[in-house]
Amino acid sequence: MSILTVERKILEKNDEIATSIRELFQRHKIFAINLVSSPGSGKTSLVEQTIAKCKNKFRMAVIEGDVQTDLDAQRIHALGIPVVQIVTHGACHLEANLVRDSLQNINIAGIDLVIIENVGNLVCPAGYDLGEDQKVVIVSTTEGDDKPLKYPAMFRRASVLIINKLDLLPHLNASLEELEKNALSINPSLKIFKTSCQTGEGINEWCNWLELRIKKL
Amino acid sequence: MSILTVERKILEKNDEIATSIRELFQRHKIFAINLVSSPGSGKTSLVEQTIAKCKNKFRMAVIEGDVQTDLDAQRIHALGIPVVQIVTHGACHLEANLVRDSLQNINIAGIDLVIIENVGNLVCPAGYDLGEDQKVVIVSTTEGDDKPLKYPAMFRRASVLIINKLDLLPHLNASLEELEKNALSINPSLKIFKTSCQTGEGINEWCNWLELRIKKL
Repeated sequence: MSILTVERKILEKNDEIATSIRELFQRHKIFAINLVSSPGSGKTSLVEQTIAKCKNKFRMAVIEGDVQTDLDAQRIHALGIPVVQIVTHGACHLEANLVRDSLQNINIAGIDLVIIENVGNLVCPAGYDLGEDQKVVIVSTTEGDDKPLKYPAMFRRASVLIINKLDLLPHLNASLEELEKNALSINPSLKIFKTSCQTGEGINEWCNWLELRIKKL
Repeated sequence: MSILTVERKILEKNDEIATSIRELFQRHKIFAINLVSSPGSGKTSLVEQTIAKCKNKFRMAVIEGDVQTDLDAQRIHALGIPVVQIVTHGACHLEANLVRDSLQNINIAGIDLVIIENVGNLVCPAGYDLGEDQKVVIVSTTEGDDKPLKYPAMFRRASVLIINKLDLLPHLNASLEELEKNALSINPSLKIFKTSCQTGEGINEWCNWLELRIKKL
């Protein structure tokens, strides 16, 4: 058995489980996003802001993926939202079976939005379908404007790009225009939001978009 | 053949090649570092600053690892330093065989320092020995102070931590003390440098340390 065969079998099994998760979400009219980025781009901060702005508009649950610690789940739990922490113990991405198992611990009846916060990694999570409706990739302005070109798979597979840490832009050499241009050169159909989790800029637009997606289900 | 067996065989083969690279470096009295971090923490900027400050003190060569593009190699080439670009075409880390092959394209006679800039990924490169003397992990202040706790393997296997983007600290909620404390709780023997590639802060200390390492060979 070659390594490629093993990898293909893992991916086939993953896709099968992801399909069953997607069907579960559809049956319950749940919109699900798979939130991916480098470490420290602001995934958990965006989830916190989304909860703050939207918790009276629709009902959410969060699945937190981390290599180690339950620090992120603690932050979400403090906001009164159902949350399950997956600790991968070294693994570099979430897989569908972990999401399926986590969903056993959430009462999804009445939930409108499930946010799956993936492990901080701009490479490996691109290859694994978790049963989400849309992959949402965050890139922070501090990471520079060339990331879409250097890590194209993630930007190709995402349907939404959130450019975060807008508040730091005046202190950086990076160009917002260049970042957008590079992202759209990889994936011209990307929907782009520009946010700051410090100032709250752009969070309303993001939450309105989520609300519209949920209403369309 | 199980997946674990395949993985172990890959790692054994990698370690074997890494050992031969390490012996090659030792024969030529070359100090080699494996530079690892999240995407956008400033690996290439640190290499540029190191070249600017040190190119009259010792002779360098650079191996650039990227998932896609040769943008980083172009930046180094522009500074007149021998550089080889490895494009992994989707793979999330460098392996020793890629470094061995790259070294065929560098005249290492007379080189004092080889910098291997790994793929931007705080998870996967931790597991792969590339024949370096020391793993140097960069974390930027903008990534928050909890990263050593959340991605411990990399901080455990590195011997040096560079805290970069010091210039942005006044605009952030992150605590430098907390970041250092978290890093040392994972690996108490970490040597820590604090730098800004924008202002040049801390680059002299880093270069002096490199010079000392080279002189000790």
